[in-house]
Amino acid sequence: MLQISDKGKAVPASPIRKLVPYADAAKERGIKVYHLNIGQPDIATPEIALEAVRKMKLSVIEYTASAGNHTLRTKLAGYYQNLGIHIHEEDILITTGGSEAILFAFMSTLNEGDEIIIPEPFYANYTAFALMVGAKIKTVTAKIENNFALPPISEFEKQITPRTKGIVIVNPNNPTGYLYSPSELEDLAKIIKKYDLYLYSDEVYRRYCYDGLKHFSVMNLPGIEQNTILFDSMSKRYSECGIRVGAIISRNHELLNIALKFGMARLCPPALGQIAAEASLDTTDEYFESVYEEYIKRRDFMVAALNAMPGVKCPVPKGAFYSIVQLPVDDSEKFAQWLLEEFDYNGQTVMLAPANGFYYTPGLGKNEVRIAYVLKISDLKKAMEVLAVALKVYPGRTV
Amino acid sequence: MLQISDKGKAVPASPIRKLVPYADAAKERGIKVYHLNIGQPDIATPEIALEAVRKMKLSVIEYTASAGNHTLRTKLAGYYQNLGIHIHEEDILITTGGSEAILFAFMSTLNEGDEIIIPEPFYANYTAFALMVGAKIKTVTAKIENNFALPPISEFEKQITPRTKGIVIVNPNNPTGYLYSPSELEDLAKIIKKYDLYLYSDEVYRRYCYDGLKHFSVMNLPGIEQNTILFDSMSKRYSECGIRVGAIISRNHELLNIALKFGMARLCPPALGQIAAEASLDTTDEYFESVYEEYIKRRDFMVAALNAMPGVKCPVPKGAFYSIVQLPVDDSEKFAQWLLEEFDYNGQTVMLAPANGFYYTPGLGKNEVRIAYVLKISDLKKAMEVLAVALKVYPGRTV
Repeated sequence: MLQISDKGKAVPASPIRKLVPYADAAKERGIKVYHLNIGQPDIATPEIALEAVRKMKLSVIEYTASAGNHTLRTKLAGYYQNLGIHIHEEDILITTGGSEAILFAFMSTLNEGDEIIIPEPFYANYTAFALMVGAKIKTVTAKIENNFALPPISEFEKQITPRTKGIVIVNPNNPTGYLYSPSELEDLAKIIKKYDLYLYSDEVYRRYCYDGLKHFSVMNLPGIEQNTILFDSMSKRYSECGIRVGAIISRNHELLNIALKFGMARLCPPALGQIAAEASLDTTDEYFESVYEEYIKRRDFMVAALNAMPGVKCPVPKGAFYSIVQLPVDDSEKFAQWLLEEFDYNGQTVMLAPANGFYYTPGLGKNEVRIAYVLKISDLKKAMEVLAVALKVYPGRTV
Repeated sequence: MLQISDKGKAVPASPIRKLVPYADAAKERGIKVYHLNIGQPDIATPEIALEAVRKMKLSVIEYTASAGNHTLRTKLAGYYQNLGIHIHEEDILITTGGSEAILFAFMSTLNEGDEIIIPEPFYANYTAFALMVGAKIKTVTAKIENNFALPPISEFEKQITPRTKGIVIVNPNNPTGYLYSPSELEDLAKIIKKYDLYLYSDEVYRRYCYDGLKHFSVMNLPGIEQNTILFDSMSKRYSECGIRVGAIISRNHELLNIALKFGMARLCPPALGQIAAEASLDTTDEYFESVYEEYIKRRDFMVAALNAMPGVKCPVPKGAFYSIVQLPVDDSEKFAQWLLEEFDYNGQTVMLAPANGFYYTPGLGKNEVRIAYVLKISDLKKAMEVLAVALKVYPGRTV
């Protein structure tokens, strides 16, 4: 009998994308929808990357090497060296976006029934990738009261069993915007070493750290060089999410060689995206400074606007471009759907990502949403205005 | 303890790519290597596709829809309708190459321990994708004596167990170049229906059928509309393997919706590749006619040259651009490695794909290689000359 796989049935719908049909319907009714749900920045891709695509000289768009173009890998190694992260071309496997980096790393290291620990809330797609390899997710819960800081190491330790193979962190964090401090990471390194676990570190938002804080990479944690696996992506750093170019970075070459076997099966990462990625690595500091200023402006505006709404609580994110925000509503998923289905203010509404999809523990995040501050200030202003009105009239409001 | 997963350990190295380090070493020694190992055509990508990339107007290379761009899906549906294959936009999920189509379809339909039947020799990467989902491959063996025709249906039926969920075919076939006839496919449809199995059909070489033969798609087999899953790719049709754009095509929307959940987890297929793909669908008949003439010329030349070598047997491929060729050697993998490591003729050698990697049954294909006739005639001539000399002097020759 025609069967849908158990894993297929179990994959949760993406919390970022599952309300898309409602948004589409709203748009069809002529309503302007401000997208605060998805980390799709409106920032222009660096001109140097666009120009490289427009001037590409290929007459046959061939397969590239399965590990990615040699020139891209070399240049990316140089990028890391400039950051004081000492890795080399042979430590890099180019992947089809950060997504494939996660899948290949999990597929290379985890057996059915193995466990990984992730602080929740976390980037929801980890659930799907863990499911694809049959791994079980265990969580420690970060609290909004602590601005979503790393939960105490003792909490992690309580979750460790003989099946535990690794810990996943996202730093700066999506969805919370929290930036882990060197001392938090050093504490984490101790249990990584003690139990000889993998430390999978998703650092795709590295470029976005605010308030003078510096990003500290797990690749610079001494004593766990064979344990650390970095997930990188060009998507957010250069506002080019569509090119689908990411990387697995690790000094553990046994692991990288296995990941490459999966890479050979899928032949190669996108050739055109790699052209854009390689050029992007020459992006000027001026570009990043203006992007930084823009995000700071957006963040400061948004945090102030949200915290001025009665019953709303928004911690100040220190990195990335997300915040988990507490709302005075009965159920943030119902609220998000209501915003798209039943509400508009002067023909406008907002799309939010209900936070329950970022928590693994059922019931958590019910009055929280993830907001991505990826819209220009003028749009963000309108979006905040719309949200403030919506919270006043939403039938399920709790304040 | 840091672990490599069982699946990771089990993934066989790609038969097409595992000798690459030897080829690289040969090139470093200054030897010209003719690549007959990989299906990377030297045919130019249609100018219309290159031009679309060069003229792309994006200022932010954003995520596309997870199912692929609406415009691409619509246009691809039109392409199928023109071929007399009645499918619509909603039957199409755009994937990152045909590779991802295979992975998502398997991931959506197969549980650990489920079985699929594939006629061998088969496209080697199916092994890796089956492994990734934990499915077991069972085979029926196609024979060089029959030009690799579909094995008798009774052979398939012998392999069916309660765990069997589907049958995979590649048509025209990679690696054999065999084109299945409508009656062979109708026979296959009978057991698909009888046991209610999925029929996964990889038709990425559809455009390459020779000698007046027409391609017949499984999508036109009546009575199994919910069972058929088509894997498509732009790579070979438009000589743009690097764009990484493929598709799952199915009228089974329950399945397609599940595949889309995996698609949402990886966010989207490549945006730039989709621009090239969409433009490619306007490729003129003139382009295909000249490509067709070129391949026919290459095929006829290669088949004649090979069959003129003592002890060599090359069936006439009716589609795609591969042939499985029997060689008078002790072990084709040793021979292929020897060609790269120890042999050259006037500073030239050839790279072949040992056929053992295309057979699932251990021991089969030991005196066969896959040859891709993807080089221009002048290079193919030199490659055949080199191969003829090599076969004369190879220490492990059997004739």
